[in-house]
Amino acid sequence: MLLSKLVCERTKEAPQDAKIKSHILLSRAGFIKQVAVGIYSMTMPCQKMSGKIQKIIREEMDALDGQEVLFPVVMPREIWELSDRYNTIGSEMVRFKDRNNRDMLLGMTHEEAAVHLANHIVSSYNQLPMMIYQIQTKFRDEARSRGGLIRVREFTMKDAYSFHETKEDLEKYYYRVFDAYNRIFKRIGLKRFIDIKSDSGMMGGSIAHEFMLLSEVGEDSIVLCNDCDYRANMEVAESVLDTPKVEVQPLQIVETGQDKTIEEVCSRLGIAKELSCKAVVFAVKGKSDEIVIAFIRGDLEVNEAKLKKAISKDVVPYDGGISDIIACGNIGPYGLNKSVIAVYDKSLENINALVIGANKPEYHYTGFNFKRDLADATFCDISKVKDGGKCPVCGGTLRIENGIEIGNIFQLGTKYTKSMDMTVHGADGAEFNPIMGCYGIGVGRAIASIAQESGDDKGLVLPMSVAPWQVHICPLRLDDGKVAERAAGLYEDLKKAGIDVLYDDRSVGAGVKFNDADLMGMPIRIVVSPKSLATDEVEITVRRSGESKKVACADAVADVKAIIAAQLAELDCD
Amino acid sequence: MLLSKLVCERTKEAPQDAKIKSHILLSRAGFIKQVAVGIYSMTMPCQKMSGKIQKIIREEMDALDGQEVLFPVVMPREIWELSDRYNTIGSEMVRFKDRNNRDMLLGMTHEEAAVHLANHIVSSYNQLPMMIYQIQTKFRDEARSRGGLIRVREFTMKDAYSFHETKEDLEKYYYRVFDAYNRIFKRIGLKRFIDIKSDSGMMGGSIAHEFMLLSEVGEDSIVLCNDCDYRANMEVAESVLDTPKVEVQPLQIVETGQDKTIEEVCSRLGIAKELSCKAVVFAVKGKSDEIVIAFIRGDLEVNEAKLKKAISKDVVPYDGGISDIIACGNIGPYGLNKSVIAVYDKSLENINALVIGANKPEYHYTGFNFKRDLADATFCDISKVKDGGKCPVCGGTLRIENGIEIGNIFQLGTKYTKSMDMTVHGADGAEFNPIMGCYGIGVGRAIASIAQESGDDKGLVLPMSVAPWQVHICPLRLDDGKVAERAAGLYEDLKKAGIDVLYDDRSVGAGVKFNDADLMGMPIRIVVSPKSLATDEVEITVRRSGESKKVACADAVADVKAIIAAQLAELDCD
Repeated sequence: MLLSKLVCERTKEAPQDAKIKSHILLSRAGFIKQVAVGIYSMTMPCQKMSGKIQKIIREEMDALDGQEVLFPVVMPREIWELSDRYNTIGSEMVRFKDRNNRDMLLGMTHEEAAVHLANHIVSSYNQLPMMIYQIQTKFRDEARSRGGLIRVREFTMKDAYSFHETKEDLEKYYYRVFDAYNRIFKRIGLKRFIDIKSDSGMMGGSIAHEFMLLSEVGEDSIVLCNDCDYRANMEVAESVLDTPKVEVQPLQIVETGQDKTIEEVCSRLGIAKELSCKAVVFAVKGKSDEIVIAFIRGDLEVNEAKLKKAISKDVVPYDGGISDIIACGNIGPYGLNKSVIAVYDKSLENINALVIGANKPEYHYTGFNFKRDLADATFCDISKVKDGGKCPVCGGTLRIENGIEIGNIFQLGTKYTKSMDMTVHGADGAEFNPIMGCYGIGVGRAIASIAQESGDDKGLVLPMSVAPWQVHICPLRLDDGKVAERAAGLYEDLKKAGIDVLYDDRSVGAGVKFNDADLMGMPIRIVVSPKSLATDEVEITVRRSGESKKVACADAVADVKAIIAAQLAELDCD
Repeated sequence: MLLSKLVCERTKEAPQDAKIKSHILLSRAGFIKQVAVGIYSMTMPCQKMSGKIQKIIREEMDALDGQEVLFPVVMPREIWELSDRYNTIGSEMVRFKDRNNRDMLLGMTHEEAAVHLANHIVSSYNQLPMMIYQIQTKFRDEARSRGGLIRVREFTMKDAYSFHETKEDLEKYYYRVFDAYNRIFKRIGLKRFIDIKSDSGMMGGSIAHEFMLLSEVGEDSIVLCNDCDYRANMEVAESVLDTPKVEVQPLQIVETGQDKTIEEVCSRLGIAKELSCKAVVFAVKGKSDEIVIAFIRGDLEVNEAKLKKAISKDVVPYDGGISDIIACGNIGPYGLNKSVIAVYDKSLENINALVIGANKPEYHYTGFNFKRDLADATFCDISKVKDGGKCPVCGGTLRIENGIEIGNIFQLGTKYTKSMDMTVHGADGAEFNPIMGCYGIGVGRAIASIAQESGDDKGLVLPMSVAPWQVHICPLRLDDGKVAERAAGLYEDLKKAGIDVLYDDRSVGAGVKFNDADLMGMPIRIVVSPKSLATDEVEITVRRSGESKKVACADAVADVKAIIAAQLAELDCD
């Protein structure tokens, strides 16, 4: 490819809204161009990179006996009503009426389409296990698209759906996909990625894993143990909480005046926050009069995801509307209005004497003891793990890092096959609903993740396996006949050797060429100049290390091939 | 691929709405499954075939220095307002509001997106000519989707956009794409396809060609000359009309009573239809009081597309609302109410004496002569070519065939670059709007066309270049250890030789296997049976010819490779 013809503009400045490295670099290198909020066009380098990532994904899916299919982007309401998701998914799903006034939607995931396709076609247990996948455009009307390709509204995704006779078979297959995902992320050149158990959320299953690229710009908080393999998404992460030691005391009401916060009350009473009980008020989503009060140890925070799971209801922070229960202030578990849903965190269970709100203004209790004073309370884990907390597996120290979700896999169970009435007959003739798994990877997200992790202050640093071009030739002084001839010859020779080459055929200075080459990030740069040709050599530079060497012109192709082979081998892409 | 695991159900019956061969066969072979009207899922064989077609298209586009990019499916209203198409395209374009109440649409074509991408990036004439293309999902809310993949609402399309400095450069490039299209259709195995000049319609350009597969199920009428290369879409086709000989006569009013139709009037007066002037009434679309009257020779029909072009207005047949002009009956050019738009077909121009309506009930004129009686009338071609008409190029005989549009190319001009304000500076520093061409091929339409043209009464007959699998192995009596071993061995050997193989591993009878193999249409079938193995042979059958031969097991791979190579060479795919 001739750089002069490439529709791809390199710029010094990034768009104003570009705050993170991958967004800045992909924009500055001309890989992406915004069309609307969260909607991008991709230029050739980006699309070529996307194609190489897709090829690696296909290879791994095909190796799992995956069958590539294609589901539609636009689907009718009917099949989404069977699973009830037409009604339960919010405004992130685009709905519209077609010209015949029928309700249609844009696919943001394809479980329904997968079951629709497989239903009736797969009718015998003999046909299981079976996996179908597609690489297709999806649209999710994100409220907070951001970060270039990190979180967009329209994206290309590989989504796969497997069908099984038994839970055991699903599990076996699930872990094969798990391994394939680790291979995929390694092969496309990601480094600091991990798998973590996750809450399966909207998908409605039970066991699930997210693959996360550890990155300070990630939106997800991940809990990791410094001492063992334990890691989990903050939403489901646990930690061991030591119960603070304190003697049993009588229950006593004490005046606390205008002091309301945990800090104020503990300070007034001279008590550690770990010995107080905090009340956090929520409302059931869409029902502002259905109040949920989460009680938790004063030094801890409530994990909303855990809370939702504990009460099987979606909650939102209480918005401050008038309510007798709230208005009195100083909410506590003792003498609480029975109309609220009270949830008790397990951090409170074994503390001998707690400070709690007295459910009336200006008073608290001290010496509260759940076992003695509220014997029917049940406890569950609704607390957020803290940085430095104790690992639930080995007792080591937990740390919290941010992560970008680069893939996810779910054991779905029979939610979709049951609701869509897909049955298969078993060896004994009896019919059953196949058990499903589903597996997603966003291609654009992968591109952004690579840019985010590998990019440096000069520009993109693209892995050999997915770089649009493996080699970027920069001839200096193209007005020198010898340079022009040798550089063009090298370009042809490399292409003949099956190597992807970008050729900077512009008559611009060395600085411009080097800056562009650094910014675009191809793995190998070759400089052909009057100076290098004086000794019949070219200069080969490896982008990621910056290492340069002079190589005899006659050896250049062989040398490049060796570098490519070595870098691909590192990525298990040979 | 093991057939037992393939998610693809072969059936004896096609869906009730399947009326044409390609729809019936693609459904019965399990290649497609309908999700909603005009919306399909594709199973693995279909998607594999789609992938092979896409690969051929990419090769040809890349050979034209095309840069593969990706535009979004969902676009904002703003960029479509610049070209005014947001307002001018009707309900076939899906529009919806996003969660922030912004107007969005689903792309049915991507001229605006292409200019949006190239704008500012391409800023110098040095960067021209330049072509960008994508292979992407499109949605067009067709009122009359039909015929399986022939006319759908959601489809995968390759669309390409080229940008040029001069009209000459566009033309040169346009004909390179033209040649590439001919190669693409040949390489994917289509046979009876032709290119024809077409009306560029919605795209707003001037010169355009459609590529048509001649097929009785096609929706387009194509005029072809039996004696020379002339061919054209009915919408723009011309033919030579001999002027019927008749002496000049005086203009006379004659009573014609209740006779109204051309047949009735000509019969009453004993005059040939060729000597009468027919009036066909239309109204400007959306304006029922703006009446257009097309006058044409009594034996001819009005071509609405030509009429629209002639008056640069969209028209619809007059719906019979009350109007003085119409209500009087017997409409004729002489003494016509001046408030209507009158259009005269050139077939009338030189006839010495015509029968025309007298613009009052129960009367006509005879002897009407345009040159004498309505000297200011101007004539244009608004007539439909008739089967058997005279070729405008060689005078030979024209025939009319139906065609399926399989591709189209347009010289767009500057409509989009002007309206979207894309300028590029020339060698002299002056800015200009690049001149565009655009070029489309529907991938699903290509699949349906192949099925339509090559399928026979047993099933699909897929060309070697695009068949999902090149070889379909049918082992008979898998309970025979020798058959099982040799068939499986052959399967592995063929795969090792880089051949795509489908292996029927089911324990079913020969009839079922042969019927499925015929229906699915892979180019080569290999039967391994106890009988063939008795002489250490397998039976190789070529699907398209039905020719069978016995081949020694040891030679099977080499023989298959030779057949594949020969068939690919025929398609210029070696």
